[in-house]
Amino acid sequence: MPNKIILDCDPGHDDAIALLLAWGSPEIDLVGVTTVMGNQTIEKVTRNALSVARVAGITGVPFARGAHRPLVRQIEVAESIHGKSGLDGPRLPEPTLELDPRHAVDFIIDTIMAADVGDITLVPTGALTNIAMAVRKEPRIVERVKQVVLMGGGVNVGNWSATSEFNIVIDPEAAHIVFNEPWPLTMVGLDLTHEALATPTVVEAIAAIDTAPSRFVGELLEFFGETYREQQGFEHPPVHDPCAVAFVIDPTVMQVTRVPLDVELTGTLTLGMTVADFRAPAPASCTTQVAGKLDHAKFWSLVVDALERIGDPEQ
Amino acid sequence: MPNKIILDCDPGHDDAIALLLAWGSPEIDLVGVTTVMGNQTIEKVTRNALSVARVAGITGVPFARGAHRPLVRQIEVAESIHGKSGLDGPRLPEPTLELDPRHAVDFIIDTIMAADVGDITLVPTGALTNIAMAVRKEPRIVERVKQVVLMGGGVNVGNWSATSEFNIVIDPEAAHIVFNEPWPLTMVGLDLTHEALATPTVVEAIAAIDTAPSRFVGELLEFFGETYREQQGFEHPPVHDPCAVAFVIDPTVMQVTRVPLDVELTGTLTLGMTVADFRAPAPASCTTQVAGKLDHAKFWSLVVDALERIGDPEQ
Amino acid sequence: MPNKIILDCDPGHDDAIALLLAWGSPEIDLVGVTTVMGNQTIEKVTRNALSVARVAGITGVPFARGAHRPLVRQIEVAESIHGKSGLDGPRLPEPTLELDPRHAVDFIIDTIMAADVGDITLVPTGALTNIAMAVRKEPRIVERVKQVVLMGGGVNVGNWSATSEFNIVIDPEAAHIVFNEPWPLTMVGLDLTHEALATPTVVEAIAAIDTAPSRFVGELLEFFGETYREQQGFEHPPVHDPCAVAFVIDPTVMQVTRVPLDVELTGTLTLGMTVADFRAPAPASCTTQVAGKLDHAKFWSLVVDALERIGDPEQ
Amino acid sequence: MPNKIILDCDPGHDDAIALLLAWGSPEIDLVGVTTVMGNQTIEKVTRNALSVARVAGITGVPFARGAHRPLVRQIEVAESIHGKSGLDGPRLPEPTLELDPRHAVDFIIDTIMAADVGDITLVPTGALTNIAMAVRKEPRIVERVKQVVLMGGGVNVGNWSATSEFNIVIDPEAAHIVFNEPWPLTMVGLDLTHEALATPTVVEAIAAIDTAPSRFVGELLEFFGETYREQQGFEHPPVHDPCAVAFVIDPTVMQVTRVPLDVELTGTLTLGMTVADFRAPAPASCTTQVAGKLDHAKFWSLVVDALERIGDPEQ
Repeated sequence: MPNKIILDCDPGHDDAIALLLAWGSPEIDLVGVTTVMGNQTIEKVTRNALSVARVAGITGVPFARGAHRPLVRQIEVAESIHGKSGLDGPRLPEPTLELDPRHAVDFIIDTIMAADVGDITLVPTGALTNIAMAVRKEPRIVERVKQVVLMGGGVNVGNWSATSEFNIVIDPEAAHIVFNEPWPLTMVGLDLTHEALATPTVVEAIAAIDTAPSRFVGELLEFFGETYREQQGFEHPPVHDPCAVAFVIDPTVMQVTRVPLDVELTGTLTLGMTVADFRAPAPASCTTQVAGKLDHAKFWSLVVDALERIGDPEQ
Repeated sequence: MPNKIILDCDPGHDDAIALLLAWGSPEIDLVGVTTVMGNQTIEKVTRNALSVARVAGITGVPFARGAHRPLVRQIEVAESIHGKSGLDGPRLPEPTLELDPRHAVDFIIDTIMAADVGDITLVPTGALTNIAMAVRKEPRIVERVKQVVLMGGGVNVGNWSATSEFNIVIDPEAAHIVFNEPWPLTMVGLDLTHEALATPTVVEAIAAIDTAPSRFVGELLEFFGETYREQQGFEHPPVHDPCAVAFVIDPTVMQVTRVPLDVELTGTLTLGMTVADFRAPAPASCTTQVAGKLDHAKFWSLVVDALERIGDPEQ
Repeated sequence: MPNKIILDCDPGHDDAIALLLAWGSPEIDLVGVTTVMGNQTIEKVTRNALSVARVAGITGVPFARGAHRPLVRQIEVAESIHGKSGLDGPRLPEPTLELDPRHAVDFIIDTIMAADVGDITLVPTGALTNIAMAVRKEPRIVERVKQVVLMGGGVNVGNWSATSEFNIVIDPEAAHIVFNEPWPLTMVGLDLTHEALATPTVVEAIAAIDTAPSRFVGELLEFFGETYREQQGFEHPPVHDPCAVAFVIDPTVMQVTRVPLDVELTGTLTLGMTVADFRAPAPASCTTQVAGKLDHAKFWSLVVDALERIGDPEQ
Repeated sequence: MPNKIILDCDPGHDDAIALLLAWGSPEIDLVGVTTVMGNQTIEKVTRNALSVARVAGITGVPFARGAHRPLVRQIEVAESIHGKSGLDGPRLPEPTLELDPRHAVDFIIDTIMAADVGDITLVPTGALTNIAMAVRKEPRIVERVKQVVLMGGGVNVGNWSATSEFNIVIDPEAAHIVFNEPWPLTMVGLDLTHEALATPTVVEAIAAIDTAPSRFVGELLEFFGETYREQQGFEHPPVHDPCAVAFVIDPTVMQVTRVPLDVELTGTLTLGMTVADFRAPAPASCTTQVAGKLDHAKFWSLVVDALERIGDPEQ
């Protein structure tokens, strides 16, 4: 039985690929997509999500708009990485789907409360603002979700500061809220995603599919590859967000380690750092784990497989 | 035309009196009451609000339950001041009103969005968690409310720490959110409310009304007076929350000064301090003001008048 | 018997006047002058101290140079208030005194350890860097000094930020060290010194003395008055530092209140705030007090008297 | 020509071995030993240093006592690791050396200022309080020392908290001072020292020397091994401090990487963390480097060789 997930995202190049992976995978039942500001403003990332839906021929899935800014901090977008639109590179088609009238927070709450206990997996690939607000508004969702599998953070590596990753550091209070609830939480952070490089072999395999969505992904990777080369000195771009979806599809695609995790809120050098305490074996009460060591081939074969299944939808 | 207010409270002895003042005053149109954890748990303060509604014969006013804990910090209640129930002292009648099915956050948003621009005044007398969540979920409420008049904080005085007041320090992130939105905001803090003492003259005047609600208030003041004497060394108890309602009824009941206000989030000694910057005249863009210097007689006559108007409702 | 003091200063206009007051007062035995960066660099304030010594005809008093920067923070000088030299306005004569070869820290330690217990009063009127280093290097000075009477901080008022005063905020860690040692400590802060205004009457009284030192003070006050008018909106300049010396001369020149004091080290809005806890009577163990309510006439008559006693020294 | 070093230490079991390594190595000219509180109080660690000197037959080397507490924080000792004396296990002989009359801070300054530029290497193996005070009192030492090689910190590992190492976290302000001066600084942290395990082979090799000092080391390792096993779950104890000395003797004993390093002062979870920024190649101005990957055999052969050279001194 496929995994019911809500993808909470801010497309964003790698978010877009995460969405395609979720939609194309037979192991995923995409019950909703929610958006959150981050890589760009909420208006832009929401429009991007709907454009990607059209590219992929996604229908029957509610899309709901979420938080327009972090809980406490000022908004900060990643234009240097994702461009002015948040999804620069390919031509973005005019959306055809209509947004769900609900706020993402309410969509998340309603969906979880209406589903069976243990049914829904939350897959946030942006700032954790929506999830944090949902759990504060309706605490009973904690015991009803199956798990949270998020892209964000990093144990021994940062990108937006020496110690901190973008999704976490732009709304550290939201992350602190989400990391401190007692649901099963897997952090797919930079330790893992910096291995998910779109190498030339990967790019060729995607190009070989030769569909509108695969060409779209090719153009995303081209732009993303360039900004990562220039801004962060990567030879090939790390494609972060689909890793979280991939873990839901097949947990053997990466190794995970149970360890207490928390988020630093007051550090001068370490604001937004995801702190793992490896000094002792994780206590029995520990519900958090961190991902490391990607099976690179298996991961990309999941993406290629999903794109092949999506095929060439009518526009 | 009376002022339409939503009273966002955590009864709490002084919250209860604030509710009676709001209900009894001809200058106030009480369009809703929302609750927030603080003086006690959300379950207790919500039940207390409904019990007070029965005592006062409040009907036709929606009551909605709100946040069960602060945004980021752990919950901390004021049992030392308000007792085990949050409203120790008088017998609390079984509530007869039914709660509005909506979360306080949604009730606040819906009410403001449905009303005319500039119609609704928010009067928070507890932690600012509900208001903060409402403004993050629906930012358009900022330009639609008339003003926020809150009880909390203090410029040169604290009660829960050397520098900080209970309502602010238990959810400083929420307070930071509310203080930094560009709506007109009046902080009725300890500088003012420590003048709102329930002196023997006041207690006698209330006793002289001789109704069930006035006797209820008398019993509240007796308990509250005792805990304030023992815990904080006050001869007569400062009755904080009705001061905010009183300002809405008649702004001449206190002096106010325009000054930039903000909330400290990282101080070791000063967490939750409401910081006013008096070094220069407030800039034109400043939308915050702080209350000082109470007209003690006028304030208590408003309370007495409200109790007289409430009379002796059928139970 | 006059009070033996070490004046630890960063002249600085008001430091210069403090030095003249200490030198001219029969109640003060000035056993040493130490300098610390602050109003200007250590080179400039040390030269200024020696220039003032020449103006006042000070001889037989060791002057020792101290800290060139704060303990942890970067150096920040008050050029906007004290000008490029740190003592702009009057012509500064070439110093004739030679510096003591010792570092201020060692001079302070040696002097206190060589004197009788309870003999020496420390009067810091700048950042507390020297005093902090001295007490960390030789902890026995704590029980040997008579008291510390410092100019710095403020309970309900700041100048370098909304909550913080220059001397404290430029080296808050040093202040934290000094405020937390169990010696008798009197904080003569902005609450008090903002009353020590050099009004026209004061300026005239000083002018009437008509000596080289009094004219020097007149020129200091003219420059200082102008920068305070322009930078901080004061009609007449507050002459902070001599207030601390005045308290040693005659404690009745101001009121003091025993209260626990501490220094905020991590606040975003409140870094360097001197936090007083007035919530309860000071405990018996409390060794700190804060000054308020100046006797303006008595204070300035001490200054005028000192200048008259100094007379017109040969240059 | 041997390296002139000042060993600034808090013996402590591994400090004692560091002292023996420095004394026994022909590549080291031990020009002084200074002590600092840390593993135990300043009285105890100073006495321990002198006892070790007697065991090793150290003569002609000045020993100076230093800081009795951290700059800002309260003192915290590591009794759980080093026992009540700070050097529990072996019998500690009565010291025969006399302490240098100077404070460690002055000894460090005097020695560096008297030596040629580039002559002296500072080897701190405890809290950085003495070094920080020295550099604040005499800033010219920065350009005169050859380098600072310190044991402390850790990039991806902590011991006293999830992120922080004992020597740094007990006086983070001192560490911040030392890490931010522009001298060549090598951090030999837990990343490296957790590889310097005293395995049974090591213990046997030391036992085989069969001298009073080697038996002393054997007893130290026995006690240290037990506390590390019980307190931190190590099978064999990591012998931290001699690693810093070993790097001075032979830099090929470990790998080092140039990287900007700083110390976190305000983090709630990360106070005292040594933060390395690996996001980009170290800029040309970077003077800090971090050690990783120990040559375990070479390291221990240096220790064994030093013990052999020390031989069996007359007591």
